[in-house]
Amino acid sequence: MSTNTDTDEEERTERKDSEELFAEHEAQLNELLADVEGPDAPEAESTLPSLGDGVTRRDVMKAGAAVGAVGGLAGCAGLGNNTATESNSGGDVPDHKVPPGEHDEYYGFWSGGHAGDIRVYGIPSMRQLTRIPVFNRESAKGYGHDDRTTEMLEEAGDYTWGDSHHPSLSETDGKYDGEYIFVNDKANGRVARVNLTYFETDAIVDIPNVQSVHGCCIQSPDTGYVFANSEFRTPMPNDGRDVNEPEEYVSVFSALDPESMDVLWQVEVDGQLDIVDSDKDGRWVLSSSYNDEEGVEVEEMTKDDRDDVKAFDVPAIQELVDAGEYEEVNGVPVVDGTKESPHNEGDDPIVRYIPTPKSPHCVEVTPDGKYGMVAGKLSPTVSIIDIEKLATADDPADTIVGQPKVGLGPLHTTYDDRGHAYTSLFIDSQVVKWDIEEAVNAEKGSEEPILGKIDVHYNPGHIQAVQAMSTEPEGNWLVALNKLSKDRFLPVGPIYPDNDQLIYIGNDKDDETGGMELVADHPVYPEPHDAIFAHKDKIEPATTWDPEDYDEEFVSEEDSRVERVDDSTVEVYASVKRSEYGLRDFTVQEGDEVTLTATNIEGTQDIVHGLAIPEHDVNLALAPQDTRQVTFTADEPGVYWIYCTYFCSALHLEMRSRMIVEPSE
Amino acid sequence: MSTNTDTDEEERTERKDSEELFAEHEAQLNELLADVEGPDAPEAESTLPSLGDGVTRRDVMKAGAAVGAVGGLAGCAGLGNNTATESNSGGDVPDHKVPPGEHDEYYGFWSGGHAGDIRVYGIPSMRQLTRIPVFNRESAKGYGHDDRTTEMLEEAGDYTWGDSHHPSLSETDGKYDGEYIFVNDKANGRVARVNLTYFETDAIVDIPNVQSVHGCCIQSPDTGYVFANSEFRTPMPNDGRDVNEPEEYVSVFSALDPESMDVLWQVEVDGQLDIVDSDKDGRWVLSSSYNDEEGVEVEEMTKDDRDDVKAFDVPAIQELVDAGEYEEVNGVPVVDGTKESPHNEGDDPIVRYIPTPKSPHCVEVTPDGKYGMVAGKLSPTVSIIDIEKLATADDPADTIVGQPKVGLGPLHTTYDDRGHAYTSLFIDSQVVKWDIEEAVNAEKGSEEPILGKIDVHYNPGHIQAVQAMSTEPEGNWLVALNKLSKDRFLPVGPIYPDNDQLIYIGNDKDDETGGMELVADHPVYPEPHDAIFAHKDKIEPATTWDPEDYDEEFVSEEDSRVERVDDSTVEVYASVKRSEYGLRDFTVQEGDEVTLTATNIEGTQDIVHGLAIPEHDVNLALAPQDTRQVTFTADEPGVYWIYCTYFCSALHLEMRSRMIVEPSE
Repeated sequence: MSTNTDTDEEERTERKDSEELFAEHEAQLNELLADVEGPDAPEAESTLPSLGDGVTRRDVMKAGAAVGAVGGLAGCAGLGNNTATESNSGGDVPDHKVPPGEHDEYYGFWSGGHAGDIRVYGIPSMRQLTRIPVFNRESAKGYGHDDRTTEMLEEAGDYTWGDSHHPSLSETDGKYDGEYIFVNDKANGRVARVNLTYFETDAIVDIPNVQSVHGCCIQSPDTGYVFANSEFRTPMPNDGRDVNEPEEYVSVFSALDPESMDVLWQVEVDGQLDIVDSDKDGRWVLSSSYNDEEGVEVEEMTKDDRDDVKAFDVPAIQELVDAGEYEEVNGVPVVDGTKESPHNEGDDPIVRYIPTPKSPHCVEVTPDGKYGMVAGKLSPTVSIIDIEKLATADDPADTIVGQPKVGLGPLHTTYDDRGHAYTSLFIDSQVVKWDIEEAVNAEKGSEEPILGKIDVHYNPGHIQAVQAMSTEPEGNWLVALNKLSKDRFLPVGPIYPDNDQLIYIGNDKDDETGGMELVADHPVYPEPHDAIFAHKDKIEPATTWDPEDYDEEFVSEEDSRVERVDDSTVEVYASVKRSEYGLRDFTVQEGDEVTLTATNIEGTQDIVHGLAIPEHDVNLALAPQDTRQVTFTADEPGVYWIYCTYFCSALHLEMRSRMIVEPSE
Repeated sequence: MSTNTDTDEEERTERKDSEELFAEHEAQLNELLADVEGPDAPEAESTLPSLGDGVTRRDVMKAGAAVGAVGGLAGCAGLGNNTATESNSGGDVPDHKVPPGEHDEYYGFWSGGHAGDIRVYGIPSMRQLTRIPVFNRESAKGYGHDDRTTEMLEEAGDYTWGDSHHPSLSETDGKYDGEYIFVNDKANGRVARVNLTYFETDAIVDIPNVQSVHGCCIQSPDTGYVFANSEFRTPMPNDGRDVNEPEEYVSVFSALDPESMDVLWQVEVDGQLDIVDSDKDGRWVLSSSYNDEEGVEVEEMTKDDRDDVKAFDVPAIQELVDAGEYEEVNGVPVVDGTKESPHNEGDDPIVRYIPTPKSPHCVEVTPDGKYGMVAGKLSPTVSIIDIEKLATADDPADTIVGQPKVGLGPLHTTYDDRGHAYTSLFIDSQVVKWDIEEAVNAEKGSEEPILGKIDVHYNPGHIQAVQAMSTEPEGNWLVALNKLSKDRFLPVGPIYPDNDQLIYIGNDKDDETGGMELVADHPVYPEPHDAIFAHKDKIEPATTWDPEDYDEEFVSEEDSRVERVDDSTVEVYASVKRSEYGLRDFTVQEGDEVTLTATNIEGTQDIVHGLAIPEHDVNLALAPQDTRQVTFTADEPGVYWIYCTYFCSALHLEMRSRMIVEPSE
């Protein structure tokens, strides 16, 4: 059977390895969880369905448990309450299938994780519409192959990859305006901007004094800044000083200009920043933070029961910068925002340090801007921060106005349009739905606000509902981005897909799931971290390029030509249209540096042409009215057939040009 | 409205540009088509539905017509006979949706075109299960990032991309055996092999004397050879000689050993090879061929009414090679297979030249091995070659035993299990279903064998039905790989997705489509060319690595260590498991060359770890029990936090190691 390709012998070996390692990991995790839950913590196991033989659901789900021990999860029909749509969907869940020729209602923009890209999906069909290369080179779109995009990538550090986590859509008046997506690179401390007119990355900035950007968001309601959290604490600057003195390492919060992409200023803080979200009034920005212990090993990082969420008062920081109250490091104004900073004394600190249960990971502001939800996998609670109180509370701890107990491993929270929050439970492999105002009114630690839970498969990270990051949540579709898929799909070798599950949340019901219904599983290429969804009317991409939007020369058929610049440099200009390049052939000399500029002169949508030169690594993708340039060396004499990589017409195969490289002797 | 983002003014401009360019292209195409159809050709327009104002379906569909002129196709409800499933699907079409937790019935392997990869889909859900990087570097899987795969890519020409067209599954006894996929690189004359145990590319060969490989297939029934067609005619060798003497250019047919991937021999032929398929008995291999005129410009290439399909007698060629009757060029035995070759005189030519209507593109052998279908976009017919006659016919033209007239722009043919052929019609934007034996019995040029046509959207290239390339066609699902999608999906900027349409072919009905039913549209990232589908039981991937299958040292926790080799070289060995690297930190000196070897010691399926070093472009993806190695220079002093790129456990964020690079001074 294809879903289980191991022999019995191999299975036994695997189970043994797995059991040993898993036991170690579980012991480590349980110790940490116990620390937080304290002696009064309920026995989580006892509340979870049993799989027999004392194996509990928690045992199985936790952190990618060994499925061998329980015989595979997807086969356990008795385990989940919703392993197939058929079994429980009422007539009131809209069809997620989009019939041929019809359009999806929403765009979804997924970060690609260490694939380095943005993926664009249609929702609810979950069909991938396209991908936008960002930190990665990508030949299908010629990104990192033409001079324009290559130079941008080279100037931003010349890395071959990045690790994109948190896509943020630009806003006007708290609504997605369809201009840009901003996204971080965790691997190299960068932030990129995607232009949504052309669905192409148009800027990448390598942020000084920062090794790793994790959280990334725009200022709401009007994209005044882009904010970036540096996750890894390092010496500052990280030039060889203090390498063995971790107490000297620092983490900074950066603010960028969304148009120029200049780094405007940074704030140095204690601890280690993680995820970030803006309020809806342009003042406060909340950052989760772990490792306030400032340790360098896992035991040190998780020692204390509390870590401080940081709330940045952006106008106050800007005022300090304008007043010159900063130190410049690597050309960036850096403001001292540590606990001990004089800027944090008195009644108006620039950074408020809000103690929350250990290692909080998420921070997501509600669509109405009232609350910021903070949760971390090592406490079973979500802390509700009242944003209005940030300016007024004497004790930062008093800004926490609610703390419902939601389940094991809460990571991220999203929202509908009816006052409900939905939190992913990494360890429990569930999504929990709860009532926000009820949680504010309830005792801290109460489970009363919980409206229902639904199993997901398995270990969800981010979850996202339609437009939940803006002021206009739609309250219908939610996607759980599950980190493990185990046996949910046909096997594809040792690197598994993730599993993005589509859940309908448009119904409020008094049942086990609170009305949530699992609709579809979708395998996902490694490894998206987050997603953001916008109604189709919010995005208005161009169908052809406007030559005003680039600097390269628009090459018409008449402009097609070869110009020798000097003994070793040649410029070639060629128009491109169906079945014909503007030059049928051209001749250069062995060793010439050739700069080729090519324009797709067609004005018809969807008529894209390629320009490939075999054995020269040349590959341009030319959308209608676009021009790209590529520079290469013709270092081997011979005949090379330029051809079109997009199947563009009935004469596509015959669409060719010849580069003749004459031997130098 | 999001489906039409242009203003009226822009639309008018676009239409004008488009009309001008389109008119030129249409004139060129019509001239060519007329040449073939001759004076007796029916008026194709008159048989096609009218869109009013004298605009015919043919006008619109042809070669990516300007949609502006007819207001957009998807909106023309009166045009298609099947624009949505709802309108015409009977109760006898199985649901293509696969419920959560259930598996697809079939694997689909798509070539990625100039994306350079293989994409793996589930059928019928059409969900993308994973992608396999082949000619492209890909950070999600660390391919082209670790030393093993990087060296393989470097040795095969060190190109950053390739253009994969034709995936071929290895066979045993005419059935897919799940061992390998072989696929060509059109851009650089290469062939790669994907190992289906690990779903990873394990070999790439840069074929000597070949600039561009287009067709690629295995020998059936037992994968004795892999065959590769060189498409572009060049001087041989292409080292600067004869660059301006196109009459000296040649095209070769190559045979590779599927295990060693050595190039065993080549056959030089007239014309220019295109697509290739094997018979089912291990003797004949058929290659389509265009440009037998051997021209270098499109008008020359399409001048003549006939081009010759080449049928290679493989055992006969092997005999010549064994007997030493070849010329060695760049280390490869090259046999003369041109028309004038002495090997082609007499009764047993090694290559038969079969004249077919101009510029044939496809060649696909029927599952029973009786016929090879050949069609080209510039003739409305499919030529049926009787494979048994290849050995016996005096005149090669007599091997053509049928030639149904199927429609405009026939490109590719696939098969069900009931004697039907399905041919894509690029210009008509349709799939035509026809009866094979009826076509053999009918007059040449007859439309009698046609059972039905279905509209597809738009301009189909390859089409493929389940297991149609093996001896076991399933006859249920067919996918049309359409080159244009126009307004079928939400707009995503000037580079559009293709549209893969799922069609159910399990029903034979006496209706307009012959029972074919369009089930779903799927947007596709540029730009797949072909696909091949296998039942899930044919593929048995491993879920973890076997360390016997690689050369790197398996690094246990105890083996984790740092070894200084000399003043400037350090070797680092680290185990990897959930929440922990085997080394909490390690120190090197500025300028050191570091070779890092890392093993994921876990045995549990789906627990993949990453190993990334910020600002050093280091990125390993480690499946369970896998070991990878990477070599880099630690050229900037500082502290660098190694982290895991796969979200692996509740302590994933804290899973870190520190590389300390001490300053050299």
